Amino acid sequence: MSEHKNDKEAYKNEPYRNQEFVVNFKDPFNAEPTPTRLIQSYITPTEHFYVRNHAPVPDIKESAYFLRIEGLIGKPMVLTMDDIKSKFEKVTIAATLQCAGNRRTMMSEYKKVKGVGWGIASLSNGTWSGCRLRDVLEYCKAFSKDSGAFHACFWGLDFGCPEEPDGKPYGSSITMEKAMDPEGDVLLAYEMNGETLTRDHGYPLRVVAPGIIGARSVKWLGRIIISPYESESFFQRRDYKIFHSGIDWNNITDKVWDSTPSLQELSIQSAICSPAPNSTVYLPFTIMGYATGGGGRKIERVDISLDGGESWDYAEIMTEEKGPVNRYWSWVFFRYTITHLNQLDHQKQVPLKLMCRAWDNASNTQPRDVKDIWNLRGVMNNCYHIVDIVVENKKSNL
Amino acid sequence: MSEHKNDKEAYKNEPYRNQEFVVNFKDPFNAEPTPTRLIQSYITPTEHFYVRNHAPVPDIKESAYFLRIEGLIGKPMVLTMDDIKSKFEKVTIAATLQCAGNRRTMMSEYKKVKGVGWGIASLSNGTWSGCRLRDVLEYCKAFSKDSGAFHACFWGLDFGCPEEPDGKPYGSSITMEKAMDPEGDVLLAYEMNGETLTRDHGYPLRVVAPGIIGARSVKWLGRIIISPYESESFFQRRDYKIFHSGIDWNNITDKVWDSTPSLQELSIQSAICSPAPNSTVYLPFTIMGYATGGGGRKIERVDISLDGGESWDYAEIMTEEKGPVNRYWSWVFFRYTITHLNQLDHQKQVPLKLMCRAWDNASNTQPRDVKDIWNLRGVMNNCYHIVDIVVENKKSNL
Repeated sequence: MSEHKNDKEAYKNEPYRNQEFVVNFKDPFNAEPTPTRLIQSYITPTEHFYVRNHAPVPDIKESAYFLRIEGLIGKPMVLTMDDIKSKFEKVTIAATLQCAGNRRTMMSEYKKVKGVGWGIASLSNGTWSGCRLRDVLEYCKAFSKDSGAFHACFWGLDFGCPEEPDGKPYGSSITMEKAMDPEGDVLLAYEMNGETLTRDHGYPLRVVAPGIIGARSVKWLGRIIISPYESESFFQRRDYKIFHSGIDWNNITDKVWDSTPSLQELSIQSAICSPAPNSTVYLPFTIMGYATGGGGRKIERVDISLDGGESWDYAEIMTEEKGPVNRYWSWVFFRYTITHLNQLDHQKQVPLKLMCRAWDNASNTQPRDVKDIWNLRGVMNNCYHIVDIVVENKKSNL
Repeated sequence: MSEHKNDKEAYKNEPYRNQEFVVNFKDPFNAEPTPTRLIQSYITPTEHFYVRNHAPVPDIKESAYFLRIEGLIGKPMVLTMDDIKSKFEKVTIAATLQCAGNRRTMMSEYKKVKGVGWGIASLSNGTWSGCRLRDVLEYCKAFSKDSGAFHACFWGLDFGCPEEPDGKPYGSSITMEKAMDPEGDVLLAYEMNGETLTRDHGYPLRVVAPGIIGARSVKWLGRIIISPYESESFFQRRDYKIFHSGIDWNNITDKVWDSTPSLQELSIQSAICSPAPNSTVYLPFTIMGYATGGGGRKIERVDISLDGGESWDYAEIMTEEKGPVNRYWSWVFFRYTITHLNQLDHQKQVPLKLMCRAWDNASNTQPRDVKDIWNLRGVMNNCYHIVDIVVENKKSNL
């Protein structure tokens, strides 16, 4: 990808990675599990959890680590990891993180977009333990919205993002509504899946902001600035925004960038993880995949089509997270088993065009066609997922 | 509509109605304003506010009125209107109410559905004053969810719904999460647009539950029952549910009805109110309409197409309600002005297929085709709205 400069020296101290990963970009490291691996467990094992880095992975000693909290704050502060672990209640949530670029490759196949290509697996589900961002901000006496504090800005310690001038680290921000919402569940996490964070996932401390795009869950958190303004980072101001399909790199203006809201809440998403595209299967077989509502919305149903969207039936939702309204942070898996196909009584092979689409508790569903949501950054591709397969008859007399 | 029994005697005491209304069903009264009237003011005047009744309008004396609150309640109570006005803080919100059947007629044109036909205007925006349902339930010591109180069930005083046996009134329920949410803004309203409620809108007291389907905002409220279960009303259990397009009146089962969640939050919606379908217009002209996010979500953008969805441009959002995240209860209006069409340089007439679609702050958008969302009750039709027009050149030499 031309937007990333490759500097071998800067990437010489990367952590060991699972060899099963599909590597979409090497330096910085961007990788996703295979679709079949993705649905092998409801909580994604850490070594299979997708990785989206923007710079070399910093090598931080916990003993030398501190978090600065400044800006519109009554008591600006520097906290050590000891402070963070001892001064604030430890809480654990389960939450799916998803990159806004999930399924970008498919969008690019329709019409080329810029950005790291991703298949259908740049999302994963984990448990996260740490303290509530809200508790920390209250402890530091963060100003309220009435006093002009509208955004919680995060800077990482991963210096050297190629997109940033002067080797700045990755940065991003969320709204103070989300940061301070008692039901927003934004954490400063130091554990993932019950163990200390790994380097690839933000050791020793990261933001986990469930329900919104993964880009806001800043890893290797070094600084929080409470501000009237969004983060000044490239990744807040000139990336992770969605435009109509007529906006391209030739006609986009600063005015369009500036007036377009930064993505926060995720939209509804689903994809078929098995069978694989262009595979041949035998009866009976089961279609399996994931669905996730944005913003903590519940997945109410998943529909499956075998005929390219002409007719539909309900999939079975296998894992239904029990949560209060609007706090369904984790994905669900779905399955649909086919035991008989009339056409196979007379034919050796039947091609099927599998499709899935999910519906949330606000009757929002996915768009059918990628052309209706195509955008120049290739973000938020949540159109119906299509998988072409062939079902073959095992009977030899046909 | 065959589902409504017409009983002239029962409907002899209906209130006076505006003669401008488009009447979709007379007894019970179901009417919407014309699309051009709808967008004449951001707050819909009461006499033009859509009316969706399920039974004859009751004629209630405020002095004889009382509200019963019972079920999972520490202090079951009977409140008079004096109690309601004096014991609880009076608050005012602006909120758009929308019938889940809005745009049903269009769905029926694709494939016949059962239910009162509605154009694009079975929604309106009003201001509502009253007390918070939450305050009343706290006063009565309603049980918490931990004690099994999951639903706030409402019964009206509009006895004689044709769908109900034994002349029961209209009934519905919302979740206790919504009822008790400090930011849910559910009111027991006694004023609309700054004046005492009119009979058609629920005098003397009604529920206003913003962000969710209008069917839950029960008018002429007579009884609140806090319950482990949803309302037992026909309208909760056997109506206002959405199925996939393969479910029809021949194959639907009790199991499907029972396992399908009742609609609560509205989905994202928009429609073009001007120009009118099949009209002829001259340059310059302006496309105008409304857009509304469900569940208090903000409308971030509205796109307009002149060519049936091939290319798109941004409409201007005219009225942007300022609200905290997730409390955008009111619609927005949009406009898009066309001053020149290249084709008109050479032609006398140019046919245009206008389309609109909205996007909310979670990047949810509307589905393109009605076939993808068709359902047997004809609810939640929020596909792209299409208006065919002809633009005519005033120049006589062409």
